[in-house]
Amino acid sequence: MDCEPVGGNRLADPNGSVLPPFRLAQAQINCIVGDLSGNTKKICHWIRTARDLHADLVSFPELTITGYPPEDLVLKPQFITDNLNALQVVAAEARGIVVVVGFVDRRRSIYNAAALCADGQVQVIHHKRHLPNYGVFDEKRYFNPGDARHVVEVNGVTIGVNICEDLWVGHGLARAQARNGATVIVNINASPFQAGKDDERERMVRARALQNTAIVAFNNLVGGQDELVFDGRGIIVDHTGCLLAKGKAFEEDLIVADLDIQGVLDARDRKNRQSKSPNGPRPTVTRVVCSGSPYSGSRVPVIPATREVLTPVDELYRALRLGIRDYVGKNGFSKVTIGLSGGVDSAVTATLAVDALGCDQVVGVFLPSRHTSAASQTDVEALAENLGIALHTISIEEPYAAYLNILSGAFAETEMDTTEENLQARIRGDILMALSNKFGWLVLSTGNKSEMSVGYATLYGDMVGGMAVLQDVPKTMVYTVAAFRNALMPEPVIPDHTLQRAPTAELREGQTDQDSLPPYAILDPILKAYVEGNRVVADIVAMGFDAPTVQQVGRMVDGCEYKRRQAPVGIKTTPRALGKDRRMPLTNRYKGA
Amino acid sequence: MDCEPVGGNRLADPNGSVLPPFRLAQAQINCIVGDLSGNTKKICHWIRTARDLHADLVSFPELTITGYPPEDLVLKPQFITDNLNALQVVAAEARGIVVVVGFVDRRRSIYNAAALCADGQVQVIHHKRHLPNYGVFDEKRYFNPGDARHVVEVNGVTIGVNICEDLWVGHGLARAQARNGATVIVNINASPFQAGKDDERERMVRARALQNTAIVAFNNLVGGQDELVFDGRGIIVDHTGCLLAKGKAFEEDLIVADLDIQGVLDARDRKNRQSKSPNGPRPTVTRVVCSGSPYSGSRVPVIPATREVLTPVDELYRALRLGIRDYVGKNGFSKVTIGLSGGVDSAVTATLAVDALGCDQVVGVFLPSRHTSAASQTDVEALAENLGIALHTISIEEPYAAYLNILSGAFAETEMDTTEENLQARIRGDILMALSNKFGWLVLSTGNKSEMSVGYATLYGDMVGGMAVLQDVPKTMVYTVAAFRNALMPEPVIPDHTLQRAPTAELREGQTDQDSLPPYAILDPILKAYVEGNRVVADIVAMGFDAPTVQQVGRMVDGCEYKRRQAPVGIKTTPRALGKDRRMPLTNRYKGA
Repeated sequence: MDCEPVGGNRLADPNGSVLPPFRLAQAQINCIVGDLSGNTKKICHWIRTARDLHADLVSFPELTITGYPPEDLVLKPQFITDNLNALQVVAAEARGIVVVVGFVDRRRSIYNAAALCADGQVQVIHHKRHLPNYGVFDEKRYFNPGDARHVVEVNGVTIGVNICEDLWVGHGLARAQARNGATVIVNINASPFQAGKDDERERMVRARALQNTAIVAFNNLVGGQDELVFDGRGIIVDHTGCLLAKGKAFEEDLIVADLDIQGVLDARDRKNRQSKSPNGPRPTVTRVVCSGSPYSGSRVPVIPATREVLTPVDELYRALRLGIRDYVGKNGFSKVTIGLSGGVDSAVTATLAVDALGCDQVVGVFLPSRHTSAASQTDVEALAENLGIALHTISIEEPYAAYLNILSGAFAETEMDTTEENLQARIRGDILMALSNKFGWLVLSTGNKSEMSVGYATLYGDMVGGMAVLQDVPKTMVYTVAAFRNALMPEPVIPDHTLQRAPTAELREGQTDQDSLPPYAILDPILKAYVEGNRVVADIVAMGFDAPTVQQVGRMVDGCEYKRRQAPVGIKTTPRALGKDRRMPLTNRYKGA
Repeated sequence: MDCEPVGGNRLADPNGSVLPPFRLAQAQINCIVGDLSGNTKKICHWIRTARDLHADLVSFPELTITGYPPEDLVLKPQFITDNLNALQVVAAEARGIVVVVGFVDRRRSIYNAAALCADGQVQVIHHKRHLPNYGVFDEKRYFNPGDARHVVEVNGVTIGVNICEDLWVGHGLARAQARNGATVIVNINASPFQAGKDDERERMVRARALQNTAIVAFNNLVGGQDELVFDGRGIIVDHTGCLLAKGKAFEEDLIVADLDIQGVLDARDRKNRQSKSPNGPRPTVTRVVCSGSPYSGSRVPVIPATREVLTPVDELYRALRLGIRDYVGKNGFSKVTIGLSGGVDSAVTATLAVDALGCDQVVGVFLPSRHTSAASQTDVEALAENLGIALHTISIEEPYAAYLNILSGAFAETEMDTTEENLQARIRGDILMALSNKFGWLVLSTGNKSEMSVGYATLYGDMVGGMAVLQDVPKTMVYTVAAFRNALMPEPVIPDHTLQRAPTAELREGQTDQDSLPPYAILDPILKAYVEGNRVVADIVAMGFDAPTVQQVGRMVDGCEYKRRQAPVGIKTTPRALGKDRRMPLTNRYKGA
């Protein structure tokens, strides 16, 4: 649905008086968890910017002051106190503009809250009512649900402020607020990226706008926080479901729209006051008249936002890039190091790291053994050259021989098996960690979701690192990302041979992944059903997959929960990531048969 | 409070009829998460045992059929179906006795439920109302709260069945059930061990009994499940707060008591019907008359339970022993291997492992370097001999030299630092993991809570393993456990020298822990306040600790969250363990100043 932004037109209200448009600004900013003073400074900066644009109101994302999710930090009483003090700093900046900002409120218990600030003070507080406690969310661990359904009158416009899930829940707060007269719903969010989420959000916000004949403004956070990436893309939708403005994807942004409040009132009148429930509870309306507003001079014109439509692979690519950039930067690192094998996973990880951090901040390490092919070396060197990154080459043969020697007594009369393969992977891990320790580089691990799901990875070996970039990207999708990235430039960055060779760990002679695993084109849909879809083996066989294969995959997934529990944090990109999104017991005899 | 068990006496009721005692049995059993058929077989076994003892009713712990906590297994629809089928098997065994068993019920959503079964069928279902969602608990992630307050009449006795938190919440369900006529509250639990919990439970159960003038039966789970150890010690308390029976600590048990129902009714009459609220909602009473009961012949006499009082160190010791035994056994391992350093942590871990599994199931590995003292070797050899375990000695010098050689190019013009120390620890980790891979032994890691809190441990080095036995035991308490265990035998198992030497990682010449850390006697109380108590630096300085020391400790704790995130599972023994009990963001700029 494409519509013209409403712009700054003025309409006469039914009483003949003129109701001016209401200028709404949304700041989608990148906060850092726990950085109360940094976040506060950033909020104040954007308040000034919005004020310069003559906005009546500027909103910020959910839990702006603390960053999201603050997790067990909110169990520290002093942290709550410090966040309340930071709120006062924000409120003091709220002059000549109304500010809606997220913070943790404390009464007898604590609340995920939004403060509406004006005239230098907190005027109204909304407590989030619907607390998500599924997937990656643990909000009932921390917060009490609020019970307010009040609305606020700002410069003559009735506004309902609510938080994230409050809007997602269909028969939730937005309806109550609209019935209590709100023509504008200001909804502040920390809604993490996952494939397809942006469309879902737009559909939901349009639905709420139409259901309630209200303008709905969905303000999202942006930035990476451990396994989550918040993708921004906040939207403002009018009461007819038309998109008025949309924030950038994966970047900070301030979007502004002039809202036709009179249009909402007229539409409601035409609907025979259907949105005003005569039998509902009497609304509590707090009137806030912001000094200096409504702005009476000539306003800076609003630049209509263009709606950027990203392909699935493009948004995945940007999510991963931002996830790396923020994890590295927010944790005080500048450089990263990556073990390059000549395979596609390490090539994509290194490319993303260069795109996130710059080529000077990425160090490749090639760690060949007797089983490493000449082609791997060629591919690694070509990749490093294409990316412009430094490359260390360190053979693992000498420590490998040393280990075999010192273990020869204990291993007498045993056969070579995966022990020796794991040992090679662990030597590589040790070397990467030694470089990390010596030079302060963060190690990025390279395993993809398919491998991590079935345990085709060595714990303390190729799994070492501070962040597992591709942990929630299935192998088949890793190839798609590689092809996407290669197509961005005239010459491909990732060598063709890397994309065309059969995947192999090169831990024994002639090894390929398909010696141990089904082809990825079969494995990935099975894993999607088993790991993301909560299906059991019988369900997946009924979908048409080979029974022994599905049983093998189920056994492999169940058998390596202990590895995943000790894995670095990965970037969530699918509806169910490996991490706090999926909490399986280690000790588990259920076989999913 | 010590009281005589009531025994099998009969009392006349006010109408002149005789109300016989009600024989209640409590089975505290060790379930395995996901082992629906194994758990069901065990439940049926104990039903038969209780029936042979002529019990009117036997109860089982919370979520008996699935094991506790089943975590995201309950998101699999087929798992719920399978658990409902298992419930039918249990119900079919419920003949001549009433059975209360825990399972996951499914209506439109799912519930943590208790089924009351009789005459071969499920008769009544209670849905847990109060769902814990703090600490290690995530029940609101899975379950909807129930709203029933009904009571059941079993063989003429009115009973209120509820689950765990339903009893802990003071103004909760037990009061409503007592007001609805319940003289007996059957409460089924999965209440994990932590220091001091047993006393707390007894106080709580006595309080509920006195508040409601009711007999309260608290049935607990027993056994280890990942980081949790359930300690059993179920209790039955009469309406005057007297303990009638108590289950064993850290062992399966069946306790039986003959309940003086008439005594409860008489006491309530004397209290002028204070426990019957005339204004309360009308109770829903389901009448269940169990065929073949009430038992009319002469009953097997009840053996009065003796109340075992454990010292704090004794219960800690038993918790750790059971935690090891069940993690190893339930995950299909038989042998474990432990790196022995000559220090107290590895000595205590090995001793606990031998006590849990037997000396033939424990393999010690001594991994000396150039920095290892002769005294360490003497202590390790003495320990292994005292414990009767196999000992491998493998020098790490050769691979260490190999690493230094292959890294000499990359490390040119750098100084020796913790990189080389970590490398030694990682070589040890590699060797332990190689033995694990080759022989199928589970590696137990040995780091204590003090070290793990401040990050005085090498990720992928001494942190490798399937279970971190002492991860929730502060260093000072590790010494206490060692002394306790040594005192159990005429000759100490852990060499005196190990207990008397200054703690050292022996990663460089002359190193001791106190080069990098405050003395443990100071560190441990600071950590207790900071890690367990949610205090910030200023709070702890106000408690009388040296400000620079507290700041240093705070920085160290905050700076190594990434290490803890990748640590093996540890056994929870304190009110707040490092693990799912404490969920701190990795990316976190809050400095707790």
